[in-house]
Formats: sequence, C-alpha cells, structure tokens
Amino acid sequence: MNKDSVKVFAPASVSNVGPGFDILGFALEGMGDKITLSKRDGTAYIIDAVGTDLPTDPEKNVATVALRSFCDEIGYQGGFLIRIEKNFTPGSGLGSSASSAVGAVFAANELLQAGYSKEELISFALDGESLASGHRHADNVAPCMLGGFVAVKGCDPFDGFQVAYPKALKVLIIFPDIVVKTSDARGLLPKEVPMSLAIQQAANMAGLINGLTTANYAMIRNSLKDVLAQPYRKRLIQAYDEVGKLCEEHGSIGFNISGSGPSMFSFFRKEQDLTQLKESIKELYSAKGINCRLHESAINGRGAEVIDIG
Amino acid sequence: MNKDSVKVFAPASVSNVGPGFDILGFALEGMGDKITLSKRDGTAYIIDAVGTDLPTDPEKNVATVALRSFCDEIGYQGGFLIRIEKNFTPGSGLGSSASSAVGAVFAANELLQAGYSKEELISFALDGESLASGHRHADNVAPCMLGGFVAVKGCDPFDGFQVAYPKALKVLIIFPDIVVKTSDARGLLPKEVPMSLAIQQAANMAGLINGLTTANYAMIRNSLKDVLAQPYRKRLIQAYDEVGKLCEEHGSIGFNISGSGPSMFSFFRKEQDLTQLKESIKELYSAKGINCRLHESAINGRGAEVIDIG
Repeated sequence: MNKDSVKVFAPASVSNVGPGFDILGFALEGMGDKITLSKRDGTAYIIDAVGTDLPTDPEKNVATVALRSFCDEIGYQGGFLIRIEKNFTPGSGLGSSASSAVGAVFAANELLQAGYSKEELISFALDGESLASGHRHADNVAPCMLGGFVAVKGCDPFDGFQVAYPKALKVLIIFPDIVVKTSDARGLLPKEVPMSLAIQQAANMAGLINGLTTANYAMIRNSLKDVLAQPYRKRLIQAYDEVGKLCEEHGSIGFNISGSGPSMFSFFRKEQDLTQLKESIKELYSAKGINCRLHESAINGRGAEVIDIG
Repeated sequence: MNKDSVKVFAPASVSNVGPGFDILGFALEGMGDKITLSKRDGTAYIIDAVGTDLPTDPEKNVATVALRSFCDEIGYQGGFLIRIEKNFTPGSGLGSSASSAVGAVFAANELLQAGYSKEELISFALDGESLASGHRHADNVAPCMLGGFVAVKGCDPFDGFQVAYPKALKVLIIFPDIVVKTSDARGLLPKEVPMSLAIQQAANMAGLINGLTTANYAMIRNSLKDVLAQPYRKRLIQAYDEVGKLCEEHGSIGFNISGSGPSMFSFFRKEQDLTQLKESIKELYSAKGINCRLHESAINGRGAEVIDIG
C-alpha cells in the first residue's frame, strides 16, 4: 500500500536513571512528539512546528537533520512536509530532541517502506539528536525508539539492550520552570573520579538492573543512586533535595534528576495515590515563585509507533 | 539432637567478576575447605590443618578468628577442635581465606544450633577473612556462604543479593604457579579513574547482570570486561593475554582474573568440550617453565553446606 502521509508518536524519555548516568533511559506514556510526515513535490523539507518555537530551518531542526541523514542513506531525494506537534518543552531534560529525531526517522521508514529495524534507525536519529545535545549519545534516542528501559553501551554501531521492568511501575515527572543547559550540566562534572565511587556506581547499577528484572522494589529504591553526576548537577535545580524528601515520604521507589535536568523523576507503584504529593510539590515551588509542571504516567513499553496513516 | 561434631564444605569462589570488580563473586563446585568442628573440654581452639601450611595459632588463622568472633557474639565459651582440609592453595585468588572463615562460622552455627541465617553469619566470617586480606570485603565470603553469584554493595551490615544465572554455565579455572600478593595487586591501582571509564564499567555491569539473569551468553561475553582494575593487574600474571586468546578461540563466554590473581577464569556452556583448550594452556605454561593447574566445574548454587554429622 502506497502511503502519502504517516503520523507517528515518539515518546519523551528519561535518561541518566540513577547509576545509569550516560547509560540507562526509559520512555514515557502521554508525553512526546506527534510527527506527521507527508511527501511533497520537489526536494525541499518544510517544517510546520505547531505550538513551539523550534527552528524551521531544515539545517537547524533535529527532525529534518535526522530525516536527511536517513534519506541520504536510502537514496530518497523527494521533499517532505513535516508537522511537529510537541506537548512538552525543549530543555526540560526529557529528551525533546530525541523525540523529534526518532519521530522523523521512524516516520520516514514507514512512509517510504524502507524496511529498517528500529535498532538500525537509531544511528540516523542520533545524527539529528547530536545537533541539539552536542554529543552523540543514545540514552534518550534508544528508549524513545524501542520503548521500556534501554541500557546503552555504545553508539556507533548501536550497542544496547532492553531491560525488563515491573509492569506495575509508574513514574512522576516534576518539571520546575528553571533553565538548565545540558552543556552547563556537563561542564560541572569532574574528568576524574575516585576509584571507590566508580565501584559504588557499578554496584548500584548491578542492584538497579537486578531490581528491575526481578521486580524487587526495595532493591530498585536502594540502588537508584548516582554518585558520579547527581551530586554536582543537583545544585542547578532549586529545591532538589526538598522534592526528593517529599517523594520519599510518599513512598518513592527511587528519585533522581531526569537527563541533565531541571526535570526530576520518581518511581512509584501504580496503585499509589499521588494527589497529595503533587499538591505539596506545587506548593513548594509556588512559595519560591517558580511554576512547576507534573506528569504522572506508566512506562511506555512500545516506543515510537504509528498512530495514523493518511 | 545434640551433636558433638559437624563436617561442612565451604566452596572456593571467584571474586572481581569482570566489571564486578570489588562487587561480584560466585562459588565453585569441587574445590574448597572441608571443615570438621568438634567440641572439646576447656576453652582452647586446637587447629588441625591437613595438608597445608596454614597457621595453627588460633590468633593467626582466619577460621579460628572468625569462630571466636561468632562464639563471643553468642556467648559460647567452650573449646573446639577444628580440622581443616583444603584441596586448593592459599594465595591462588580463589577465596581460600573466605572458605576457611565461612566454613568455621557455618559449622559452629550448626554444631551449637545457634539459629543464625547465612546472611547473618557473613559478618562473623568477615572478621576472620579481613585478617588475611587486610580489608573487610565480602566479595568472596558472600558467594562462598550463599552460593551462586552474589553482588555485594556493603558489608556492615551485609548488603548484597544473589543474581540468577544460566544453569548451563560452567567455568574453567586456570591457576598458574605464580605468586601474586593481594596487597601488591591492590597497590597497582590508581586512586582516581577517568569518568568515562567509570561509566563504561557501570555499563558493562548492567550488561553482565542482564546477561546472567536472562541467560544471554553473547551479552555476558560482551560485558565481562573490567576497565578499572584488570588493565593494571594482568601485568602480574604471565601469559594472561595468551590464555585469554586461547579461551576465546575455544568459545569462551568471558575471561578475566579471579580475585587479584594469579588464577584466571573463563565461562563456557556445559556441553563445550575443553580437553583441547586445557592441553593448550598446559603447554603454554610448560614452555615457560611454569606449572599450571586447571579446574573445570559447574557454578556451586548451594554455598556452605553440612556434609556429615558426628
């Protein structure tokens, strides 16, 4: 069946999951990019970015840079109209650029029936993503594409794997209206770290992976600690420790920075009622004159997906 | 039933399993300490060390130091005869002191019907083990006590967990007649490591735990890499790279130093025939004038166990 248009959803994602700093990420439900890709005459890529101030120059938009990389590979020289609907904010630490890059490449693979696997598409999405993040790393792109929890060991070629997790796990995203530049967050980190901390990070990683795969919530909670990056990065996020304490008081199964912030995430079990916690966090930031958005969702186990065919 | 004597087996163990440097160990079948503990009149601890030159001074033998720590805790003031039969060599990097310490404490708990759990006994075994190793760490003691693969996150109190593994996994231990002192091996290590290597170690740990729990042999092989300690420590082991290459050529599922050496280990699937590999390794060391012992066994999933009641 020859299609003229395809609409896909590419989820937002949390990277740097505790000891999985630069390694482990997972995808979110109900937050992400809807990308509608349509063929058009000529060779130009036209961007229609709905409700965002994303660049519409195809050389500067991660979606079109990723799309160009993929089309160069498969030898497709036609033009596109790319409509990007983003229901979350770039710079939130939730993999906004990964969503755009993954969505565009995944849509093109579907529209042009190119037959690439999701794993194979990751490398083209990275060509776009690296434009925004300044480094070629798949800890948002891979979970956005594949869904669930994904651990990334290498990017060229993609070397990573999905990690099983308890289906009763949900996540609360806390996004205060604070600007944290990824490059600033990265610049804070030391180049060398004590051997003892490197060992502790690996031990926590062992516990986190084992806790996720065996649905051991106590083990997840005890292991979801990043001793390498979080101690530096949390300084950029006002009230980080207070939010963590509130989450803990409400039965958090692990709390940490999402990506390089300012968003934070906390795991809970699905049956836990977060109404009061959410009110308390809102009040906490409100008292500081800071707006704060909250998003409660399941883990997205599917990743990028087609939601409409034109 | 009141017992006068108990005989236990406490297995040898491999620690520092690749990225699990200072974290992950596993127990071996068919190699370890047989310890016979008998009550005797008076308060003295008499050591009968069979076929080894272990110290027979109760203040200097890890078994009796561990035993004393446990008996102080439970308020038992009687004497013991401790017969230690060791079918492997102290200083081999296979947790010899852990076997003695675990065996003694486990035997006393049985003999005196003290009712402690294996997890609770670990701390007393560590009191003995630390006499030999100079540091209080459970990466041999815990797998020796509990069996299987055990990841250790902390020791006081014991914080660790068993990791599931494929039952078709076996291990080849290669023990060349080279002296490596644990303290020398430890002194070689840098105090600080590059952040990038710390991240790589954690990523490999994620892969190793996920590979073990999902019986993914390719993932185990690709992840069984220690980038923090092994590059320094392998220098102390003659022909380390050559042995690794031979194992790889025979389908190794990961090769590394056992503990701080000189022993090395390589995983294989049970159905793999290692006859030729073993001959090649023997020849390799023989040509260098070095004797080399080999031990092929399953993973010991039981840990310390009673083998006879007197």
